[in-house]
Amino acid sequence: MKCFLKYSKHCDYPIQNLPYGVFSTDKDPTHRIGVAIADSILDLREISHLFTGPELQSHQHVFKKETLNDFMALSPKAWKEARETIQTLLSDGNPTIQKNPELMSRAFTSQSDATMHLPAHIGDYTDFYSSLHHATNVGIMFRSKENALMPNWKSLPVGYHGRASSVVISGTPIHRPHGQTLPVEGAPPVFGPSRLMDFELEMGFFVGGATQLGEPVDVEKAHEHIFGFVIVNDWSARDIQKWEYVPLGPFLAKNLGTTISPWVVTTLALEPFITDNFPQDPQPLPYLRHSDNFNFDINLQVDIAQQGSNVSTTVCRSNYKYLYWTAKQQLAHHTISGCNLNPGDLMASGTISGESSDSFGSLLELSWKGTKPLNLLDGSQRKFLQDGDTVIMKAVCEGDSYSIGFGTCVGTLLPAKKLAWLS
Amino acid sequence: MKCFLKYSKHCDYPIQNLPYGVFSTDKDPTHRIGVAIADSILDLREISHLFTGPELQSHQHVFKKETLNDFMALSPKAWKEARETIQTLLSDGNPTIQKNPELMSRAFTSQSDATMHLPAHIGDYTDFYSSLHHATNVGIMFRSKENALMPNWKSLPVGYHGRASSVVISGTPIHRPHGQTLPVEGAPPVFGPSRLMDFELEMGFFVGGATQLGEPVDVEKAHEHIFGFVIVNDWSARDIQKWEYVPLGPFLAKNLGTTISPWVVTTLALEPFITDNFPQDPQPLPYLRHSDNFNFDINLQVDIAQQGSNVSTTVCRSNYKYLYWTAKQQLAHHTISGCNLNPGDLMASGTISGESSDSFGSLLELSWKGTKPLNLLDGSQRKFLQDGDTVIMKAVCEGDSYSIGFGTCVGTLLPAKKLAWLS
Repeated sequence: MKCFLKYSKHCDYPIQNLPYGVFSTDKDPTHRIGVAIADSILDLREISHLFTGPELQSHQHVFKKETLNDFMALSPKAWKEARETIQTLLSDGNPTIQKNPELMSRAFTSQSDATMHLPAHIGDYTDFYSSLHHATNVGIMFRSKENALMPNWKSLPVGYHGRASSVVISGTPIHRPHGQTLPVEGAPPVFGPSRLMDFELEMGFFVGGATQLGEPVDVEKAHEHIFGFVIVNDWSARDIQKWEYVPLGPFLAKNLGTTISPWVVTTLALEPFITDNFPQDPQPLPYLRHSDNFNFDINLQVDIAQQGSNVSTTVCRSNYKYLYWTAKQQLAHHTISGCNLNPGDLMASGTISGESSDSFGSLLELSWKGTKPLNLLDGSQRKFLQDGDTVIMKAVCEGDSYSIGFGTCVGTLLPAKKLAWLS
Repeated sequence: MKCFLKYSKHCDYPIQNLPYGVFSTDKDPTHRIGVAIADSILDLREISHLFTGPELQSHQHVFKKETLNDFMALSPKAWKEARETIQTLLSDGNPTIQKNPELMSRAFTSQSDATMHLPAHIGDYTDFYSSLHHATNVGIMFRSKENALMPNWKSLPVGYHGRASSVVISGTPIHRPHGQTLPVEGAPPVFGPSRLMDFELEMGFFVGGATQLGEPVDVEKAHEHIFGFVIVNDWSARDIQKWEYVPLGPFLAKNLGTTISPWVVTTLALEPFITDNFPQDPQPLPYLRHSDNFNFDINLQVDIAQQGSNVSTTVCRSNYKYLYWTAKQQLAHHTISGCNLNPGDLMASGTISGESSDSFGSLLELSWKGTKPLNLLDGSQRKFLQDGDTVIMKAVCEGDSYSIGFGTCVGTLLPAKKLAWLS
């Protein structure tokens, strides 16, 4: 499969990838759906009439929308047909776009000219806690090594509802939040900017199709509702979290902002990178057992760049495959109560930490609760994030002849806002 | 103030109430915005041209929408003007509608001919935990009397993110959920239908206006974002909750369905029923202090009716005013991290229990964890809900010459669905 656009072997967006996103340009501020290819974007609004297969012929309007929700609402068959149609149109021998100069100029935008937006309206956002190493690390730090994992952790994919309104697109700055913390046990809580700001390296998937209230999804078919994946930075205020989270879970420590990468890499594009599921012991209950592998070999990396510095430092190298619970198990568990899903719902994995200490997906773990400061290449040290720090997350599947890249998930931590009405 | 429609003193919907809802009829299935008055609905789509005041003249289109979100997005000034306009149009001496037979027949629908729908698209749903008596009761049952309240409880309005997709309108049946529970401590968890289904008597408010990410709301101005209130039944599967909720909070135990009453009673209509705030000791931090009273004297009642029985039994009489934290404090706290709000967001109070044992807002408390079964009038007993039970919640403010009613929030618990793929 060869594309008529040229790119290197290490390009994030070869013809085997074709991730979907929503973009606009200075010239045309309308939000529209595009597919990343090489260093360009194929504007699906301009070629919607070319989706003439049996699944999509009567649904061409989904490619003219301002979000991916209506496309996500279609079936896996439709997603497959869309991918095949786009691959055909982009392939070297196909003249439809390539030999039509007028369409060529309308259909392609340089990625550098585009502003990216949230790919979907996110109705509900859920965050899981599915990395064994992350849950164990946090458990050791806050309880003890013997008592690290909660009794339920290996029986079900622990998760909680997050805030959908504050999910933002890569590049959106995040303000250090104000909140209550308890610096001295037994003393009254204090108010002020969080002092322990952290990132969390996660990945998330967008739900495709919809389910009805009261209708659990069969785990064997759960992949039919997993449209594609993005990188997620679940910014966390550790000091606020510690004081507020008992007994109903994290709230303000997380809803200050959650950053996602703009390109949704489809499950179809990830198929060549499927790898063995993480071994599960004890065997989960039948409603959580699926017979296929649904784990992915995706290299993950987190860099920190200090404000005004030219160097960034890689502080973490992890991999999606370290997750204990699969996305199919997460989705099936989420619906077993009858909870209904909508296209565009986002489900994140929880922090993805590996076994080795350089694969931990948060500063909390990397600096071991602040006891082991990290040395950055610019000579500075980090226990937690400083104002002005930019956090850059990358994800890529490395194939023999091509890579499937997720691009980057970037955010800069700004100083806490001054609250005039509080002074 | 006298309306040209006749109703009794105890009518839920006098001219002083004017709650907003979304309805359709068999004849016209379009969802449209109406105002409850007497036993009728005033169809705002049909009279949108009559909103000619300075705030609404250029926003008449909000009354032609299928949800209240666009109206909620306007300012408190606009909400006040809408209320005054509707009161004028409905008043005895005003001929505009009353003396126009054609408009009269178009503008009014009998409530008995209408199907009610969710009043707004709920972007995010938050549930607080703001009743001192409820939190104390639960704490005594699960920990001890000395240790009942968590250390943070009196310092901040504890809350968590709920599931927006499964918020449903009164009348929607709820299936008993499947899930994991741990009937025997130390033994493996088991899978099956929840055996401890409960209601939770709550009220919730809809957010008006929007805030930007990173912009906390001044607690003194928080009422400007509180559009109006509904009754909320936060159905809860106690056995699922107990096993799953550590450490990230309730998830499947709650997202099986949350029922709300259809008519949004505005904060403006509740003003005559403002009462003293619940005494708070210790004094909260400055960002949670407001100088005005923002508590409401709203009588609450829960009835249970067994399937096939003609009698229902009142199992709880409570009052909104028992809440420790005000809605203004809840909203200000929610945004202090910078979390952004959208019009149509729903924030529920948490179970509203009073001090006396007949005012407890859940069966968990009323039956004291199942140790004190309730006697229903039909001769049966309840520790938790049985299949076929209908739970009916009512809320009303009793004035000297009129009542402000919220109507009812009703739901029937159906048996667990048979899951063919699991057998």
